[in-house]
Amino acid sequence: MPPFDLPEGDPFGTHNLPYGVFSLPGSDSARRVGVRLGDHVLDAGRAAYALGSPYAPLLAQDSLNPLLAAGRTTWSDVRRALTAWVTVPAHQEAIADLLHPLSSVTLHLPFEVADYVDFYASENHARNVGQIFRPDAADSLTPNWKHLPIGYHGRSGTIVVSGTDVVRPSGQRKAPTDPAPVFGPSVRLDIEAEVGFVVGTPSEMGRPVALGDFREHVFGLCLLNDWSARDVQAWEYVPLGPFLGKSFATSVSAWITPLDALEEARVAAPERTHPLLPYLDDSAAEAEPGGYDLRISVAVNGHVVSEPPFSTMYWTAAQQLAHMTVNGASLRTGDLYGSGTVSGPTERERGSLLELTWNGRDPLELPDGKRTFLEDGDVVTLSAWAPGPGGVRVGLGEVTGQVVAGS
Amino acid sequence: MPPFDLPEGDPFGTHNLPYGVFSLPGSDSARRVGVRLGDHVLDAGRAAYALGSPYAPLLAQDSLNPLLAAGRTTWSDVRRALTAWVTVPAHQEAIADLLHPLSSVTLHLPFEVADYVDFYASENHARNVGQIFRPDAADSLTPNWKHLPIGYHGRSGTIVVSGTDVVRPSGQRKAPTDPAPVFGPSVRLDIEAEVGFVVGTPSEMGRPVALGDFREHVFGLCLLNDWSARDVQAWEYVPLGPFLGKSFATSVSAWITPLDALEEARVAAPERTHPLLPYLDDSAAEAEPGGYDLRISVAVNGHVVSEPPFSTMYWTAAQQLAHMTVNGASLRTGDLYGSGTVSGPTERERGSLLELTWNGRDPLELPDGKRTFLEDGDVVTLSAWAPGPGGVRVGLGEVTGQVVAGS
Repeated sequence: MPPFDLPEGDPFGTHNLPYGVFSLPGSDSARRVGVRLGDHVLDAGRAAYALGSPYAPLLAQDSLNPLLAAGRTTWSDVRRALTAWVTVPAHQEAIADLLHPLSSVTLHLPFEVADYVDFYASENHARNVGQIFRPDAADSLTPNWKHLPIGYHGRSGTIVVSGTDVVRPSGQRKAPTDPAPVFGPSVRLDIEAEVGFVVGTPSEMGRPVALGDFREHVFGLCLLNDWSARDVQAWEYVPLGPFLGKSFATSVSAWITPLDALEEARVAAPERTHPLLPYLDDSAAEAEPGGYDLRISVAVNGHVVSEPPFSTMYWTAAQQLAHMTVNGASLRTGDLYGSGTVSGPTERERGSLLELTWNGRDPLELPDGKRTFLEDGDVVTLSAWAPGPGGVRVGLGEVTGQVVAGS
Repeated sequence: MPPFDLPEGDPFGTHNLPYGVFSLPGSDSARRVGVRLGDHVLDAGRAAYALGSPYAPLLAQDSLNPLLAAGRTTWSDVRRALTAWVTVPAHQEAIADLLHPLSSVTLHLPFEVADYVDFYASENHARNVGQIFRPDAADSLTPNWKHLPIGYHGRSGTIVVSGTDVVRPSGQRKAPTDPAPVFGPSVRLDIEAEVGFVVGTPSEMGRPVALGDFREHVFGLCLLNDWSARDVQAWEYVPLGPFLGKSFATSVSAWITPLDALEEARVAAPERTHPLLPYLDDSAAEAEPGGYDLRISVAVNGHVVSEPPFSTMYWTAAQQLAHMTVNGASLRTGDLYGSGTVSGPTERERGSLLELTWNGRDPLELPDGKRTFLEDGDVVTLSAWAPGPGGVRVGLGEVTGQVVAGS
């Protein structure tokens, strides 16, 4: 049974077990819930039936939504069951035929996205953007930045799974010196390296979710590339925020890493420089630490250009959830929220080309030439790992996409 | 058969036939597609089966989504069939028992909302807002306003049907003179009287929808109240736009009026003051006129405070659809987009309390006292009609909601 015989320290070992949705080639191409183990995917629904598990109805599905809706206790119970299936020899034997090489399957968007919200939670990123776009401002942060996690709603219908081509968007742009806007393909197509949080348990309208209830509602996380057309965005975004500069595509990993796999990666957020209102205040000793130590890597055409550290985010996912619902807005199973671009304090830790090239002023030197923004044909890959049990890495599913010219 | 014996000129006569979703009280409480006729609702699915119609599978549903997805030709065919059922005596007889008094049914959100976008398409509204919030600006419009229909994504999960209570949201607010933000229930809760457009036919990612294809994709329209917490919005919206100031609730009519019922209401948009890029240019004689002559009425506790005319909107729904997809963003069945607050040129035609009271400076005198913004217990009702065949009015379904205090 080679699939269970993973090299020591494999980041997708039995300590990880992220969830996805896959289909097999040929006539039996139905979508099914899968669990990744090394370079294989376990058909979780069939495995559950083979082993007579009570979770079979939850796992024999074409999306993760039923599992997401089942809630924290069930998430942990299912994970314990899966861990037994892939580690106990008698179970291994029963499910060995239900492991498929990743190279033989097609991976799909793993859940039906309800609402998509994108935040702006990295202080380094916000300061860089402020300095680039508002060089004359007294403070590179807007006055509200340290008081609330700024966010906005994005387009759910154009969230695509890793591997999907991204068509270069067209739109209006206008340089300050242009007399009128011009129309055409974006000439400043960018990356935003982010982490996406997936809501499982819904909430009631009119009932805010407290900071401490983060783990009751959020099932897991994934990598997210919030592709951005900077020229379109710059012209459109005052006063109602980003719209077409972002809505053409957002890519997410095919694998959702459950929070339960990231226990060792939990860290406190950076020190707060401003007092927080009670609903956001995570300074109490018993508060949800909220931060995660995820080491992200951004590659263009296989060449690593940046390594943004997620632990540097000023606002945590727990604070974002509390903020998003404090006005009574309800959560639905399948809601997704992005952290905002992850940028660390140093130049090689910036999560966007806007920052890495300082709005095109300082091109990157790649093996295949200089880059300010993305060119047609460029392949962008985000990958990441987190510290796991006993120093073993927990791998996050990569998110990749190739830029293609519009027709 | 009294239900068919409507008074002459009834705005919900056989020339209208809007669609909704209802349930009956008691044990048979399943949701079903209904068509409004006067003060009754026809159980459309059962009527279709009773008459042996081929559209029975499309109508015997718990939401409008299957009908929405069926496309323009089917929409028109189904409407012709329905018109025959409610006008031809033999058919009337067969379906008389399937008409239920509106007072006896519960109305539900008529479709599953995919993405929700809100625009900002009234020049009068945008100029009023600009003068109120940016009194020192040289132009009350932002530089992009006349070049593109400004829009942003809103929260789909908190779209509610007319009649649903709206819990006053809490959030952060900060007056310019406050040293730090404070938290509490919004003290500037407002109305935004809008028209919502419902997308039926989806589109492919990477393929913009041309201006002239508006009617191929949009099934119909409804009234929409984009409840807004002005104090929350003012503090949060720079730089990424409205978020919690809007996301707590958006109310829509229980009835979707098909575009086919509004042929006589089609009007050209106001004259353009700026040249438009080709994808938005509707000046050609053969272009989709795009405008609709809808006479809206805004009432607070039954007292009419404003009558915004939709025909004054600078940007049309056809332009909004073309803009929303020009970057390659795809449409899904159930996408909803709001026009933005409808405000006419005169004081009594403004679609928000922000404008009607000039940000609270000039309170409205209502029979039950003065109003700047909404108080707990206030009931807001938007209603509207459009010119129909032979001068008969086409009634739009009202959208109403009562403000209740948070718990």
